[in-house]
Amino acid sequence: MLYIIGLGLGDEKDITLKGLEAVKKCNKIYMEAYTSLLSFGLSSNGLSALENIYGKPITLADREVVEEKVDVILFEAQTTDIGFLVVGDPFGATTHSDLVVRAKKLGVDVKVVHNASVMNAVGVCGLQLYRYGETISIPFFTETWRPDSFYEKIRENRRLGLHTLCLLDIRVKEPSLESLARGKKIYEPPRYMTVNTAIEQLIEVEESRRESAYNEDTACVGFARLGSEDQKVVAGSMKRLLTYDFGPPLHCLVIVGTTHPVEEEMLEFYAC
Amino acid sequence: MLYIIGLGLGDEKDITLKGLEAVKKCNKIYMEAYTSLLSFGLSSNGLSALENIYGKPITLADREVVEEKVDVILFEAQTTDIGFLVVGDPFGATTHSDLVVRAKKLGVDVKVVHNASVMNAVGVCGLQLYRYGETISIPFFTETWRPDSFYEKIRENRRLGLHTLCLLDIRVKEPSLESLARGKKIYEPPRYMTVNTAIEQLIEVEESRRESAYNEDTACVGFARLGSEDQKVVAGSMKRLLTYDFGPPLHCLVIVGTTHPVEEEMLEFYAC
Repeated sequence: MLYIIGLGLGDEKDITLKGLEAVKKCNKIYMEAYTSLLSFGLSSNGLSALENIYGKPITLADREVVEEKVDVILFEAQTTDIGFLVVGDPFGATTHSDLVVRAKKLGVDVKVVHNASVMNAVGVCGLQLYRYGETISIPFFTETWRPDSFYEKIRENRRLGLHTLCLLDIRVKEPSLESLARGKKIYEPPRYMTVNTAIEQLIEVEESRRESAYNEDTACVGFARLGSEDQKVVAGSMKRLLTYDFGPPLHCLVIVGTTHPVEEEMLEFYAC
Repeated sequence: MLYIIGLGLGDEKDITLKGLEAVKKCNKIYMEAYTSLLSFGLSSNGLSALENIYGKPITLADREVVEEKVDVILFEAQTTDIGFLVVGDPFGATTHSDLVVRAKKLGVDVKVVHNASVMNAVGVCGLQLYRYGETISIPFFTETWRPDSFYEKIRENRRLGLHTLCLLDIRVKEPSLESLARGKKIYEPPRYMTVNTAIEQLIEVEESRRESAYNEDTACVGFARLGSEDQKVVAGSMKRLLTYDFGPPLHCLVIVGTTHPVEEEMLEFYAC
């Protein structure tokens, strides 16, 4: 059996009782390390808070393991109970459908333990979850790569009066191009997009597209460390949030659509 | 302090460790009864599973209490720790923004403990959460009241290739019109819309609007008791799901937009 267990967003205490029971039942525990180390304020050898609460050791499954060695995990799960821990919900912002598909093809039973994810926790700002349109991802622009396919999606959402959740790029354990060319992987330091960078890029795209999907005065809500004790939720125009210091990652951003009175009252509490 | 604590979707063990800690700290616990009794398979005097695990009594706050007597709860929260339990996430499908706004106006501090909600747990069917458009609600049609404003929303979502989550009507503790006319409230028995009824109504609306937002062959996913041990997830055309028996409530429905290969593979596992 493969248990895919959502850990929620904040810290080691955001696991559910059901998730903890599953962890205790498993003979081996993997933890997806792509976003998790950061979310739980851990260094790569600092899993002890989690290990203490779970009462057993955790094997970090970094990006390479998840992408390349997942069959090893699934092979183990054919004969014993294996836990795979993921930050947020197993089918939240980063989905794990691929893992499930591969498990099912190998005849491995899968049980999912749900938890909060960014996709619903942004509700805390008071914008109603059912009034969000398509979710977009904003990648780090480089000198030569400045993809702006998210622009049409924002425009469509706003045309319909809907809010837009923007997930911001995370670059963890990316091999540098230079190192790949030399045939030996050396990893870039991790990078997490801030609300400020996201808005900077959004404004750049609007300035080049000029289709008025939004502008500097468009209302937004910036989030940092959503779901943790020191989370920050700040509402204001793009222009205002452009220079606001949200502190350490992870950040995400909502571009506000048309609002109802209760939504407006809530946003006022978070005004910049 | 007012703690608004999400209970998740399945049973009493879906609370998080953080949520349970908050419950134990509180001097009084209310539980929103609008959907909760059903979700947790409880009768109105059968809170004992929850009370046992939480180690303290729970006061049911039914619809009238939440709508009419919320100030009493907030008044208590000005001087002591009060817990308010909600099924799913505090800002999930049914939002509690109004409660938060009123609390903040009264100077009551609010802490939110997140959890899974329908809005993210539908991800289990393999359709990517970021490819959903606006969420719609389908109300029970009556002889004289057949509102179809959800139709345009589905049409827009499908035009953009997006999936549509349909939340299905719940009628709990609704006073009968007859009893209101007599000045004494008598409540209708609770009603929960099935996937079958939802599809029946959807087809009726398409037949009268004839704008081809969808048709009998449109792919859908029906869900029953999402997040609980005996959840049912079944994919198929509207026509197929129209007669499929999903069993007891709660039900919800997703109308599938355009799909990616991994999404299709997942849907195959759930095919009717």
